[in-house]
Amino acid sequence: MDKSGFGACGAQEGRVSEVFRKLSRFVFGKSMASSQLSGEKLNVFWGMPILASDSISSVAYAVEEILLVLVPALGIASFIWMPRIALAIIALMTILVFSYRHVVDAYPNGGGAYVVAKENLGPIYSLVAGASLSVDYVLTVSVSIAAATAAITSAFPQLYPHKVAICLIMIILLAIGNLRGIRESARIFSLPTYAFIISLVVLIIAGIFKHLAGSSLIPPDSPSETLGYGTQALTVILLIRAFASGCSAVTGIEAVSNAVPNFRAPAAKNAKIVYILLGIAIVICFGGVAFLAHTYHIIPHPRQTVISQLTLSVFGPGIMVYIIAATTAMILALAANTAYSGFPTLLSVIAQDGYVPRQLSMRGHRLNFNNGIIMLSLAAAALIIVFQADTHLLINLYAVGVFTSFTLSQTGMVIHWWKERAHAWHLKALINGLGALTTGAAVAVIGVTKFTEGAWVVFVVVPVIIAAMLKIKKHYLSVANQLDIPNELLPRLNFTATYSHHVIVPIDSLNAMVVKAMRYARSLTPNVEAFHVEIYEGAADKLRRKWSLLNTDIPLIVKFSPYREVVNLLTEYIDSEEHGSQPGDVITVLLPQFFVSHRWEMSLHNNTSLFIANAMLKKRNVIVSIIPFYLDDIKAYRLAKKAELASRP
Amino acid sequence: MDKSGFGACGAQEGRVSEVFRKLSRFVFGKSMASSQLSGEKLNVFWGMPILASDSISSVAYAVEEILLVLVPALGIASFIWMPRIALAIIALMTILVFSYRHVVDAYPNGGGAYVVAKENLGPIYSLVAGASLSVDYVLTVSVSIAAATAAITSAFPQLYPHKVAICLIMIILLAIGNLRGIRESARIFSLPTYAFIISLVVLIIAGIFKHLAGSSLIPPDSPSETLGYGTQALTVILLIRAFASGCSAVTGIEAVSNAVPNFRAPAAKNAKIVYILLGIAIVICFGGVAFLAHTYHIIPHPRQTVISQLTLSVFGPGIMVYIIAATTAMILALAANTAYSGFPTLLSVIAQDGYVPRQLSMRGHRLNFNNGIIMLSLAAAALIIVFQADTHLLINLYAVGVFTSFTLSQTGMVIHWWKERAHAWHLKALINGLGALTTGAAVAVIGVTKFTEGAWVVFVVVPVIIAAMLKIKKHYLSVANQLDIPNELLPRLNFTATYSHHVIVPIDSLNAMVVKAMRYARSLTPNVEAFHVEIYEGAADKLRRKWSLLNTDIPLIVKFSPYREVVNLLTEYIDSEEHGSQPGDVITVLLPQFFVSHRWEMSLHNNTSLFIANAMLKKRNVIVSIIPFYLDDIKAYRLAKKAELASRP
Repeated sequence: MDKSGFGACGAQEGRVSEVFRKLSRFVFGKSMASSQLSGEKLNVFWGMPILASDSISSVAYAVEEILLVLVPALGIASFIWMPRIALAIIALMTILVFSYRHVVDAYPNGGGAYVVAKENLGPIYSLVAGASLSVDYVLTVSVSIAAATAAITSAFPQLYPHKVAICLIMIILLAIGNLRGIRESARIFSLPTYAFIISLVVLIIAGIFKHLAGSSLIPPDSPSETLGYGTQALTVILLIRAFASGCSAVTGIEAVSNAVPNFRAPAAKNAKIVYILLGIAIVICFGGVAFLAHTYHIIPHPRQTVISQLTLSVFGPGIMVYIIAATTAMILALAANTAYSGFPTLLSVIAQDGYVPRQLSMRGHRLNFNNGIIMLSLAAAALIIVFQADTHLLINLYAVGVFTSFTLSQTGMVIHWWKERAHAWHLKALINGLGALTTGAAVAVIGVTKFTEGAWVVFVVVPVIIAAMLKIKKHYLSVANQLDIPNELLPRLNFTATYSHHVIVPIDSLNAMVVKAMRYARSLTPNVEAFHVEIYEGAADKLRRKWSLLNTDIPLIVKFSPYREVVNLLTEYIDSEEHGSQPGDVITVLLPQFFVSHRWEMSLHNNTSLFIANAMLKKRNVIVSIIPFYLDDIKAYRLAKKAELASRP
Repeated sequence: MDKSGFGACGAQEGRVSEVFRKLSRFVFGKSMASSQLSGEKLNVFWGMPILASDSISSVAYAVEEILLVLVPALGIASFIWMPRIALAIIALMTILVFSYRHVVDAYPNGGGAYVVAKENLGPIYSLVAGASLSVDYVLTVSVSIAAATAAITSAFPQLYPHKVAICLIMIILLAIGNLRGIRESARIFSLPTYAFIISLVVLIIAGIFKHLAGSSLIPPDSPSETLGYGTQALTVILLIRAFASGCSAVTGIEAVSNAVPNFRAPAAKNAKIVYILLGIAIVICFGGVAFLAHTYHIIPHPRQTVISQLTLSVFGPGIMVYIIAATTAMILALAANTAYSGFPTLLSVIAQDGYVPRQLSMRGHRLNFNNGIIMLSLAAAALIIVFQADTHLLINLYAVGVFTSFTLSQTGMVIHWWKERAHAWHLKALINGLGALTTGAAVAVIGVTKFTEGAWVVFVVVPVIIAAMLKIKKHYLSVANQLDIPNELLPRLNFTATYSHHVIVPIDSLNAMVVKAMRYARSLTPNVEAFHVEIYEGAADKLRRKWSLLNTDIPLIVKFSPYREVVNLLTEYIDSEEHGSQPGDVITVLLPQFFVSHRWEMSLHNNTSLFIANAMLKKRNVIVSIIPFYLDDIKAYRLAKKAELASRP
């Protein structure tokens, strides 16, 4: 039998990991080739629900947020001011739709605020935009999921105590869906957007008819309630605060421009069509809901959403309440899904610039950016837990980041048109300038009015993210500086080194594995040493005796370790001059390690070599080699033995 | 600047791990040298409380266990039978004390039932003894800790709902104490044994005086209660069951003989003195408590222990209730501590025979068997949680294992004396034979009467442990068979191999780290190849161009991976014949890996090499080498740069 082991073969391994692999494949889908990438793009029909859902779904909470500011202060008078604020927001939204169509034109490769700010305003502004957008995406997921859960618990009040759990389950499902790949998520989630729009249109039309028919009387208990707290004087500041809250309706509008490369060719044209559709949908849905809230005098309630109350008022209890709840929850889930396409794409762009870990720019086995998807899910889940799935609290953090990136993007566009001075640049610059001014004003308004209510968190987190990004960039630059070789140096590089080698083989006993290692070492260099640590006095005597029987000049070095530590002694020995290697010699630590077929068998051994390998890698200038020695499992070994005996004459 | 990197040096590393190390040193104590081992031994004064506490503490629950069988069946009549059963148990205990003194004589190196059975009855019996003892030790911890908690909650009833948590905290403290080392635990825990004995003696004397003074009347509400359920006829079986329950008083008696090597020289003599002291203590304490329970007609109560009730009856509410509770709890904790010296020692002995993982025979940095201590703690904690810290339920599992090992040990001793036939062997064999018979009878009694109440678990677990032990032994034999080289072969071994080497260097780009690796590889063999995986079409073009600029004949192999997998392609390439190595060539995969000084910096890189290393180790016959390339951290790099510039003329 060949005890040296260079001929051994054949063991089954990793049955457990095989099962795990199959399971993971079932959940996350089969691997996809890089060439399948272009097949994963979106057309208008799929792209519109995926990328516009964030904006459209804002309707589910924006009207409520306006009322939450107005009603406690103005009572019944709120319903006079409601439509005016809604109109102002629709105007803002219209400006943004047209501004962003220009962004698509100018940046058909996408990237949104980050890319626009980088190219036109400089790197530090792009980082502000990138950090704001990242925070914004995380909040998009948390806010949308919290609002979706609110829609569900409005229809099924008995689920209210479980709202955090419901949110977390939704986030997990979104993560799995997105880890499976882009188009599949579209198929799962896209129809609800249309269903939401249709069901809202039905609600709005029915509501208007009922109102015109004169049956939309305020329920008898409402007036007393509303009149009860209408004590605060009407001030401009109050209306500005209401406007700031309503701005949440506009969030998500940049998603389309960020994701232009996700569209099928002609990508820019498709994206622009989506913007027009999106504008129309929001005007109808947001305007309609605001109008109904106004005519039906809806008062926000912590356990029932405004839309749910509206449905009750228009249709009474019945199937429509559940339909509206279902479509609302689903479009909000889809809005969260928008962030799942936007956030990883944004990070991959930033990663290519070296401001976030490079791994974020790598596609997983389903061609999506796995790491980004997982980061987003964890961050959103954390927010849900901290804020106990309260939509209203989360929205206070939301709009600052969004509008900061809007402002940077629009300002960048003004510079862009000014630099380019192409046909009709004045008009384009004017539109984007208007966008920059209005969104900039919105940042100021939101930042001031919401600061103490939570927006301060964003003002802390964004600079921290920017600092981290700068530090990461610095690291990558330093690494590149130390590793890169300029092309002109390449021809002069000399690869033929004449190192003198010195191999140290740590051994535990003298066995077949050690023999294999010694032969390997000796075939590299004559300078080979065996190294052994004696853990108590006399423990190495047997090994010394055996070694002396060998017909070899390889020395056996024995060190005594009173504290039963092996690694430190080896390090000390290498650092000392004892081993007689010359300065400039290259030292290789060759570790014999045997492997057995089952994991439980591996756990029966110390596997000191693997520990030593880890420790030695921390030493500079020592090359660590592991020479594996595979042992047959018990059965295979028996069979081989039997066969050997049988083959004898 | 030397871009090859063989000259780089100096980085601070592992600040976090340093803090952790200091913390761990504070909790677990400083490392101790192997030579300090003999200093850790016990004299009679420390050894008695540590090793006899298990037996003596049994008094805390044994009387209660007898009453729990008798009272529900016999009511007031129980108190007639109580003393007779107690006397039977004292007789059994006396036989065992003398039997075990013989064991100490014959086996001064300790090991108890396992060693005795191994040497006299054969390996399979020793495994039965070893498995039974292991189960017994785990139960010693759980039962003692549960009983200690019962003592505490008897004095402080408001703690009753937290009894599981109290148990777990005690187990954690015991584990930490024992991980610190033997003698220190003795100092922490030894005085309570004496305190317990003294306080029990005080209780017994006071109780007897009070009884003689005629004031020990049964409280007025007791008779009705007891008479209420005294319905079952008096049967022999009932008395046998009561005896079986009382046998829990005898558990732990073997601890001293197992741990003879833990005693200071003369170890055997010291151990035998401890046995006599132990016998006297148990007769007084157990006998006394049984007598008082008899005279005071104590009825077991789920929330108050018998001893606590006795104290109340004798002294009334007051300080003595707390003193007795405290000393009881403390001796029980110390009893659990017995198992912490016994169990790891037993496992280390079994580990030396190869029936349990070898790691269990290795001493930790405080000279104790860490792994055994941790195993014991985890198993005991699991039992506490499953049985919700209920002493009575746990005791049903307890005695079977104990008495099985008693029987095997005593039977082994009979064989031992018979084989040896030394002076007075007849007498010695007679005493051990008597021990074997009585304990064997007890196994049968306990096994039958307690089977359905929980003892069946032991009958399942012990065979499972034995099967595992046999499987582990088989594995070690198979490994030894494949690795060991007989001494007579040693002189004929040939260490001078003339392998032809082939080195494959997986690379990501062409940089300074790769140059260092190529030089190393080339200095070993001319057969060097660079291997690159292209993850999308054209991705390798830049590398190809750079490579062509090199003045080298090392080929660059590029493989295309549609699924962005590197490891599989490398494996396939090695398995293929493409690389033109000859059969018999030794293939080394040389992995360049750079290291940065901070962990957060490492996380910014893919570290593909380390993944490849892991994967390659699963391939037989490939040697995996890692060539480290240390990058300076940003600051150090800047300083070096500055110095370089400054030194220029």
